[in-house]
Amino acid sequence: MADPEAFRRVQQRLRSGAEEGLAGLKEFLRLPTISTLPEFAADLRRGAQWLAARMQAAGLEEVRLLETGGHPTVYGHWLHAPGRPTVLVYGHYDVQPADPLDLWTTPPFSPEVRDGRIYARGAADDKGQVWMHLQAVHALLETFGRLPCNLKFLVEGEEEVGSGGVIRLVAQERQRLAADLVVVSDTAFFAPGLPSLSLGLRGLCSLEVEVRGPTRDLHSGEYGGAVANPLHALAELVAGLHDARGRVTVPGFYDHVRPLRADERAAMAALPFDDAQWLAAVGLESGWGEEGFSSLERTWARPTLEINGMWGGFQGAGGKTVIAATAHAKITCRLVPDQQPRAVLRAVREHLQAHCPPGVHISVREGEGSPASLVSVESPMVTAAADALELAFGRRPVFVRTGGSIGVVPAFREALGAPVVLMGFGLPEDRIHAPDESLDLDNFRRGQEAIAAYWLGLG
Amino acid sequence: MADPEAFRRVQQRLRSGAEEGLAGLKEFLRLPTISTLPEFAADLRRGAQWLAARMQAAGLEEVRLLETGGHPTVYGHWLHAPGRPTVLVYGHYDVQPADPLDLWTTPPFSPEVRDGRIYARGAADDKGQVWMHLQAVHALLETFGRLPCNLKFLVEGEEEVGSGGVIRLVAQERQRLAADLVVVSDTAFFAPGLPSLSLGLRGLCSLEVEVRGPTRDLHSGEYGGAVANPLHALAELVAGLHDARGRVTVPGFYDHVRPLRADERAAMAALPFDDAQWLAAVGLESGWGEEGFSSLERTWARPTLEINGMWGGFQGAGGKTVIAATAHAKITCRLVPDQQPRAVLRAVREHLQAHCPPGVHISVREGEGSPASLVSVESPMVTAAADALELAFGRRPVFVRTGGSIGVVPAFREALGAPVVLMGFGLPEDRIHAPDESLDLDNFRRGQEAIAAYWLGLG
Repeated sequence: MADPEAFRRVQQRLRSGAEEGLAGLKEFLRLPTISTLPEFAADLRRGAQWLAARMQAAGLEEVRLLETGGHPTVYGHWLHAPGRPTVLVYGHYDVQPADPLDLWTTPPFSPEVRDGRIYARGAADDKGQVWMHLQAVHALLETFGRLPCNLKFLVEGEEEVGSGGVIRLVAQERQRLAADLVVVSDTAFFAPGLPSLSLGLRGLCSLEVEVRGPTRDLHSGEYGGAVANPLHALAELVAGLHDARGRVTVPGFYDHVRPLRADERAAMAALPFDDAQWLAAVGLESGWGEEGFSSLERTWARPTLEINGMWGGFQGAGGKTVIAATAHAKITCRLVPDQQPRAVLRAVREHLQAHCPPGVHISVREGEGSPASLVSVESPMVTAAADALELAFGRRPVFVRTGGSIGVVPAFREALGAPVVLMGFGLPEDRIHAPDESLDLDNFRRGQEAIAAYWLGLG
Repeated sequence: MADPEAFRRVQQRLRSGAEEGLAGLKEFLRLPTISTLPEFAADLRRGAQWLAARMQAAGLEEVRLLETGGHPTVYGHWLHAPGRPTVLVYGHYDVQPADPLDLWTTPPFSPEVRDGRIYARGAADDKGQVWMHLQAVHALLETFGRLPCNLKFLVEGEEEVGSGGVIRLVAQERQRLAADLVVVSDTAFFAPGLPSLSLGLRGLCSLEVEVRGPTRDLHSGEYGGAVANPLHALAELVAGLHDARGRVTVPGFYDHVRPLRADERAAMAALPFDDAQWLAAVGLESGWGEEGFSSLERTWARPTLEINGMWGGFQGAGGKTVIAATAHAKITCRLVPDQQPRAVLRAVREHLQAHCPPGVHISVREGEGSPASLVSVESPMVTAAADALELAFGRRPVFVRTGGSIGVVPAFREALGAPVVLMGFGLPEDRIHAPDESLDLDNFRRGQEAIAAYWLGLG
């Protein structure tokens, strides 16, 4: 537990530097670091260089860009606390695409503060949270001239595209990255004012499907009724991926899914969660999913198969009476312990190939995958994080899980053997991955204090 | 039957003017008259004005643009043959969109002659065929100083978008358009060298479907598994529109379909048609469709329901792990006698609404519709057309049907009470509605002779 007097001092320092801290975050948010779109590659590199300069300015040493073949990873450390634990802080400076642009109140890369929130793509996911860590380091060094523990920062630029580069990097750089604990701040509180620690993440794997019919688009008057329509075939394939009970029909899909224990289900059920309200917030009157599970169980502890995009034929205004030559779908599966991504990808691919309707051909391309992760609520590193959150937010955190995926987390566990603590400061209303993403500024400020308290408590 | 000497004289005239005729066609084909795309509206009007000037130059009188609220219709006539029949010649100067542009060997609006064909969007559908009629009028007037019958020309600019304007116009202008016969040249020979008369056209009606889920795109990690995905729902709806026997599942869809008579099936079976070859020409190994019908029966005499376009979610490079807020589909049905478009549209809409999966909402917008048409092979106007084709091509034509639709044809039958003869000069390999559309130049030249022979035979 952090010494109360030391905590008070660093807290004051953070508060007096709050304005400057917010100005730095705005600069960070102005950089359009969209990792999935090739035309932004130069912006990613500029973003990495900007971040490296700010890490150096905060007091980190040996700051550098580590090349991964794609968008670079930014590394820096402070290692002058012999005998104290070493913490690896992970985050990402890349962001999701900003489309549809017309649904943003203000432009996605022109950060603006409104009603105690800062609006911009990446505000919560994950630039704001990376920035909190840098502010905490800076304040601790300014206050005490030293950090209470050893810190390594690893901030990557490919989180939103599967973290392929940094996953290889972590496997190659075990020495450089060796740590007693990995801390990730890329998750959210369960509710406003309710600090939370996430024990688990779902994994993720992706596929792309192409259904091919005729060699060219056909006139639907000349051929309609006598040839298979690739769009019908794709619809049939997609419709066949779930049954009436909301389960994925791919054979073997659930084979290695770890069942929820009764105590885990009870803990989830005890959380302050209003299903109807959660759905109403996104305009829905009813949920949908696997029979026999609550919404929290469905999103935290059950695997999914989702179509993220589907297209073919004429999409313009008016009409065009064609039978399209091809139809396309992008698929991702969210995975839970103990599913293996490659096995799931293979099962989905083989299922799609086996069910390809007559008259068309199918190609399925397997993408990247990462498994789920889950830590024990009894880990001392989890307890220390809970103490720090209580100190900064005045309330003991709840333990939750995260339905999303952070691709590199499984690599940390495998390569470094260190526990991963997910201490995130977003809120459910942050609209990450969507128009009008934002970050609550009260969480932004107290989050910096919680991080400082965590290091003081470990040191 | 045309007088052989008169036919020989106009034939010579057409042959000596062939080069000039082709140059005029090229000019016509350079105008990008894409009726479905709003940005080409001014090009449509320029196209109509250009055509009006050429009709006047050919010797037609009272040439003018008739306003329909959309792209104008061009009208002109020659009425100095009292006591002789009056023929209304119908065609269209608008064309389909040219995308995908990268699949054209030469640009779609830069006509080029290669190996006895002229390549351009609209070469066969339908500018080339409209131009044949003008060349025939011009040659007859130059040769004889008069036409052998009364002629009215009606060339519209909205055929590819359902002919809404000209359909209203035909109903309003019964007096001006009154005729003993309507001739449409917007169809094709059954095979190269095999002149054909088409007895029927399928009708057409269209719908647009929107499936709505959450009010915004959702993060598939946060919500995936617990909310309905609009793309899955759309796929389920589309997949449910056909059964395993290739039939449309919409209740009532086949209620008024006129069954094929045994003699009609025998006539279709007797045509020189190689199913495997027809499919192989567009890269297919097998057909697909309603059980118990041949490909010709499926495309000529059976109704269809086709998805012409379907889309939703992320379509870019890479991945985006979203659950899309909306999913979309464009649907058209090809209709046969005696289906009524409005009844079919209502049945499809109600079926889709009734089968909307839980957790999403659906909107279905009914578009335009036109019924199928069919004339008797025993009509004297059909016999006269067959005689003319035999004179110009040296071979008795076969009688076929057309799987496509010409929206205004039902209006002619209803408003004018005149038989409609479909005497078209395209070929199956013309690639209408697709990249590299072209017209056979031998058919282009002999077609002009056949048209002149038809008028001489009627006169």
